[in-house]
Parts: sequence; C-alpha cells; structure tokens
Amino acid sequence: MDMTKLDADSLASAEATAEKSYETLRGRNLALDMTRGKPASDQLDLADAMLTIVGAGDTEGDDGTDYRNYGILAGIPEARAFFAGYMDVEPAEVVVGGNSSLTMMYDAMAGGMFFGMPTGKDAGAKSWRDQGTVKFICPVPGYDRHFAICERLGVEMITVDMTPDGPDMDAVEALVADDASIKGMWCVPKYSNPSGETYTDETVDRLAAMPVAAPDFRIFWDNAYAVHHLGGGPAGVKNLLAACKAQGNPERALMFGSTSKITHAGAGVAVLAASEANVADALEKMFYGSIGPDKINQLRHVRFFKNMAGVLAHMDKQAALIGPKFAAVDEALERRLAGKGIATWTKPDGGYFVSVDVLDGCASEIIALAGKAGVKLTPAGATYPYGKDPYDRNIRLAPTMPSVDEIKTAMEVFCTCVELVCARKISSAS
Amino acid sequence: MDMTKLDADSLASAEATAEKSYETLRGRNLALDMTRGKPASDQLDLADAMLTIVGAGDTEGDDGTDYRNYGILAGIPEARAFFAGYMDVEPAEVVVGGNSSLTMMYDAMAGGMFFGMPTGKDAGAKSWRDQGTVKFICPVPGYDRHFAICERLGVEMITVDMTPDGPDMDAVEALVADDASIKGMWCVPKYSNPSGETYTDETVDRLAAMPVAAPDFRIFWDNAYAVHHLGGGPAGVKNLLAACKAQGNPERALMFGSTSKITHAGAGVAVLAASEANVADALEKMFYGSIGPDKINQLRHVRFFKNMAGVLAHMDKQAALIGPKFAAVDEALERRLAGKGIATWTKPDGGYFVSVDVLDGCASEIIALAGKAGVKLTPAGATYPYGKDPYDRNIRLAPTMPSVDEIKTAMEVFCTCVELVCARKISSAS
Repeated sequence: MDMTKLDADSLASAEATAEKSYETLRGRNLALDMTRGKPASDQLDLADAMLTIVGAGDTEGDDGTDYRNYGILAGIPEARAFFAGYMDVEPAEVVVGGNSSLTMMYDAMAGGMFFGMPTGKDAGAKSWRDQGTVKFICPVPGYDRHFAICERLGVEMITVDMTPDGPDMDAVEALVADDASIKGMWCVPKYSNPSGETYTDETVDRLAAMPVAAPDFRIFWDNAYAVHHLGGGPAGVKNLLAACKAQGNPERALMFGSTSKITHAGAGVAVLAASEANVADALEKMFYGSIGPDKINQLRHVRFFKNMAGVLAHMDKQAALIGPKFAAVDEALERRLAGKGIATWTKPDGGYFVSVDVLDGCASEIIALAGKAGVKLTPAGATYPYGKDPYDRNIRLAPTMPSVDEIKTAMEVFCTCVELVCARKISSAS
Repeated sequence: MDMTKLDADSLASAEATAEKSYETLRGRNLALDMTRGKPASDQLDLADAMLTIVGAGDTEGDDGTDYRNYGILAGIPEARAFFAGYMDVEPAEVVVGGNSSLTMMYDAMAGGMFFGMPTGKDAGAKSWRDQGTVKFICPVPGYDRHFAICERLGVEMITVDMTPDGPDMDAVEALVADDASIKGMWCVPKYSNPSGETYTDETVDRLAAMPVAAPDFRIFWDNAYAVHHLGGGPAGVKNLLAACKAQGNPERALMFGSTSKITHAGAGVAVLAASEANVADALEKMFYGSIGPDKINQLRHVRFFKNMAGVLAHMDKQAALIGPKFAAVDEALERRLAGKGIATWTKPDGGYFVSVDVLDGCASEIIALAGKAGVKLTPAGATYPYGKDPYDRNIRLAPTMPSVDEIKTAMEVFCTCVELVCARKISSAS
C-alpha cells in the first residue's frame, strides 16, 4: 500500500488510523531516548576487569619507566605499539592521548587554523586562518560534532552527498582541485555516521591520489567504528595513510580512533595516526598544553586487550549485545513502513546508527510528535552542517542505549509518527 | 670568608681549590638530575590504593549515574563538591577536568585569545587577539610552562619582580591601570615556583581591587602547591575569588589546581575554579572538544580522599618524605656557601623548588659545568620569559625526585661549581 498513491478517502482513513494509534501511545506516558550513540550498561560491563588490572607495585613499563609520573607526551611505548596494530600503521606514526578522540580532532583543526600544518615542501607552515577563508568538505548526512568544530572555528562547510561507496568523489575531486581555501575534509570511513556506508577501495584511492590545490590539505579520517560490527565481523576499509604514501601524499592523512565504544565511553583512550612528520607536528603543538597523557589508563587498556585478537574477541561480545537491538529497529521499520513510499532506511553492518529518510519536509514534525509521545530522537537537522537539513527528511536513530523492549515500544511510536505526518503531508499536497 | 672581598692571592687559592674539587667530582662519572619538579616513587606509592578503589559493579554516582559512560562535561558532582572544598569555593564554581591543569590553563589562554572572555558588562565578548596586541604580566622568576604558553599564543610578556610578599604590586597596579592590552597576569600564589613566596593578604586584596583598564582582564591563579608543605602544615593564602567578589570584580579570577603532585603525577585530576559566569564560559568553550572528562578517575580520587581532611593527612605523609630532601639542599648551601658573598637562596616552607641567585653573569656557566660533571640542572634562564634571565643569576633546584644521598652528592657538585665560576668571575672583574 504505497501511501503516495492512495485516493483521498483511503488516505484520510490511514491518517485517522495513525492519529488514533498516536493518541493511544501518547497516553502511555513513555520516556524513551534514542538520541545519542551511547553504549548500554551491559556493553560497559564487558570491560570492567580493566578497572583493577593495574594495581600497586605494577605500574611500570617494559623498560622500567614508572607510568605514575609525568611525561611521555606521545603515549607509552606499549600503547603506541598496540594502537599501531589497531590503526594499521607503525608505532612511530601513533600518538596515544587522553580519553577523547573528539579532543584530538578539535585540537588538530584548531592547530591548523591557528598554527598551520606542515607541508613537507614549504619550510614555514602558515596558519590556515592567516591565509584567508578556510573551508572543509563535509559529506552529508554526517556527524554533528564534526560540524560543530568547523562552525566554532569559523571553517566554512561545503557539503557533498554520501553514496553507497562513500562521498561523491566526482564532486570532491572537482572542489579540491581548484580551491586552495579548502583545507580539509571530514570522513567517517567505516559504518559512516549516520548512514552506515563503508568507503570502497576505489574511494580511498581517489582520496589519496586526487590533485589538491592546498598544499596543507588534510583528510580528517575519523575511524570511530573500526571494529564495531553487528555480528558479521568488521568490514575492511583500505588504509588511507598507506594509500596516501603510495601516491606521494603522506601528509594528507590524519587518522583518529578511540576505545570509547570498545571499553568505557568516558574512560577510554584516543589515538592519532599519521605520518611521522604529522606526528612530530602534533607533538610540538601538544607540548604547550600537556606534560603527558594518563599513562596508567593506557596501561590498563594494553593489559586488558593484550593485542588485536583481544580487541576482536571483545567486539564479538559487543555485537552479540547490540545486534538484536538493530534487528528490532529493522523489524519494526520493515513491518510498519515497507512499501508505503514514505520512508527509506539503512541496514548497517556496524556502527551505532540507523539513518531514516522520510518524505521531504516531514522530519522535524515527526521528531516533534515523537517527543510529545515520550520518545526522544536526535534533533532534526543534526546530521547536517549548521543543524539544517535542506530537505528536512533525515532522522538518525541510535539503538544501542535502550533495551530491546524499549526499542520495540519506541519504534511503534516512531513508525506511527512517520505514518501520521507523511499522511498529512500527502493529503495537504494533493 | 666573603669571596668578593678576598685579595688576589687568596682568591687564586680559592679558585684553585675549587678547580681541584671539581675535577675530582667530575672523575666520579655521576648521573644525577635535579631539573624538574617530579615526585619520587615513594611519594607516588602513597596513592597506590587509589588504583583499584573503583572496581566492577561500583562505578555509579550517588544519584545512580553510570560514570563509565559519556557526558558530564563539568565533572561528576562528587568531584565538584570535593574540589570546591579544595579550592574554597562553591561546587557550581568548579569544573573538574582531565589529568592536567596545564591543559586547562593553556585552554583558558587560548580561549581568551581566540574567543574572548565574558565581561559581565558587554554582551559580546571579543577575542583578545582581535583587539590588537595582547600582553600578560609575568612575575619573575616564574614557571617556564606559563611563559611557554604566552610565547606560543603570541602574548607579550611584561615582567614584574617578585618580592617576599608576592609580585611588586606598585608595578602591577601602574601597568594594568592604563594599558587595556594587558589582558591578564600569571600568579603562583603559594610557595611560588621557583622562589617559594606565599602572597600576603594585602597582595591578594590589591590584586582583587586594583583598577584595570581591560574589562576582560583575568588573573591566572595557578595554585599548584595549595597543600604542598614541607612539614609545618600548609600556609594560608587569601581566597582570590572571594576577594574579587568583595571588590565587585567576580570575573577577574581564574583559579587552577590539580592532584598531580598529590596522587599520581600523570594520572591525577585537574580543576578550574571561578565565578559561575566564567564556569559557564569555560564549559561552552570545552563543549566543542569534549563529551566529558574521565569520570572514573575523578571517582577514584573522591573515594580515596573522602574529604579535605583526607588530603591534609596525605600531604603530611608527603612532607615527611620530601622535607629531608629540602633540608639536605639547605644544609649543603649553608655549609658550603654561607657568608661567601656569591649566592643567596630561598628556604621554602612548601612547594617543589629552591631558588638560588648567584653572582650576576654566572648562572649559565655554573649549570654548564655541573652538567659536565653529571649533575643536570634546570637550564639557565628557564625561570624567565623567553628563557632569558637578564642577570644570568637565577638557578632553580628541584630536590624531590633524587634520593637524599643523591642530593648530597649533587649539592657538592653544585656548590663547587658555584665557588669555581664565581671565583673566576670575581678574579676576571678585578
């Protein structure tokens, strides 16, 4: 039953049914939250052994260094080796930081804006800001925190559409070839936030090889979901740094990761991986604001996982917990909305989100109605720069935090709101 | 025997004796380090129970919030309450951060430079940088990391001499009254780094009350040694925020502290204390680069200390460990250099340093000679902006890290180098 093709009476009837369902659901005084990609308690429990894994008398590194004390700005050698495996680079190409990759990304962009980026060609890097207007390419839909950093630092955002293969590379190549004010680009290469795509090898190769007008151009490669699959094992994504080196553009890649959605969200470890020149530049910038990271917490992580096999085994357990939640979302969407012509949605193999596109002009109203019925959804427009979805159609669902039962209830509300708002929209347009 | 008053023969004899001693010490192939204010292992051991104090199933706050997850940018309520006691302010006037107060200070100055500071009068704060030249007052001698932040961010440093009561307030008042480009001032109010003074109540009151040309002026109050005494209990220092409020200048004070020299140097907790307007401004600035601090580590600290009485009892134990080290430094200086007219030094009641002033023009050479004999000292000039001591006379000794025996040996080398270089200086000048 494609709602866009119903006659007026059938449409009015569908609208009335949806309205009645909505009022019933609203009467249940629900309080459910599907706004943010936060892990649930049972996911966090999986890493609890980490809390006490470093104890008294056991705080030294392999070389005898006492990790309770100051220093070691780049992170402890054990953690650099461990995250080199995680990021598929050399230990010398890794900086292990504090609890937040968002901090490392903010610092990287602020560092470019105020101090510049090494080019490997010019001796003196000039700050982006002092070169005039600064622009970044932002694939959409995307991650609101990336956009917020750009907005804060006065970086203009140019949107490029996501495709099943990654960003629209024809558009990206055309933009960067001529405009030296485009200093970089955001990417979430695996299980992209929110739409779940993984970049193809061809996309990565084109990113690495494309001629770029700005010599200090950087790809901000936020590999937030590197091992975060939903049951089928992690997807492969081509190594950007290796690809950039192969193309003679080793400084182009700044790759970020963290254990925030692997161990404890607030008490994880973040990492930057890049060429040695970029690592040296990052450390020089970090020096002014830090004597060194929390090395004890780095040691906890290394001891807990031991190696990449430990991480992968751990993430299989995570997948067993969150896989059914994504399945519950998809089941509801299929059962309630399939074939109705009012919504399409992603079926991700990993990451933290399901992305739903509804009829143009309906997303805000759906989110508002769901909110009134006690189901909090990510604000409309959050997946676009400046919080403005030009089509008012994209809605990001985050199923990890609620229980399966809560998701089932929340999805009934959500689907009812989609039906109701879209029915009204179709009927007002006809 | 005042060496500056010896006749030529006696001076030559003293020089020869010192030279012989130096060569003997040099032959011992020492490797001692008195460069940085790092705690020794036995100090760090005192906090080792903290490592395992938060375990599985025990990660919730008083209100049931799971501290393993994302969020709570200002720090957990328990830690805000705890550090409110430590900083002598209200919990709402506290932001509890990550492992480094240096990071908070860097971020505060970068925040002023690039985004401005709220004035409480003007609606729109303008970035310091966009107002033209930016200057900070730096009492000297001072902390090299403070100066490095200014240099990095392009903030011009104006030096003011330290006096036994704190900075020369006549000079400070005269500077800030007319020059709106002076946006702030560094202060280490208790056991100042390196010279050990504690600001008097009158100094604090004058800082709070002084008319300031810049409405967005800030005192960066680095209370790094708030409870770090050497045996006599912590000195009192008047509460700057309370004094500023009393004078109608509540936004003037940005107070910083940390547990880096209380618990584990690299794995402590840092804090900003300021007016609620400044706290709101700091949180707004932090939002773009953080989802929240490591709350588990904050919880460890609160559980370990429970309250201020816990901190004070802990610091008595620290004093028992480092007090004898400072005594060994003083004993050597008294025995070897007292009455010789070539050096004066501080006798601090707390903090991490002894500051020695030698004959003008001798510090660099003394440090170089000591280095050749295997005793590393803080580089000459480090206690002055741009690393340039205009008199080449100040040397900072950091006695906490080496053992008492190592200190005794290092001090023999140091005193010998002082005698040798000063004897040569006097003889070349006569």
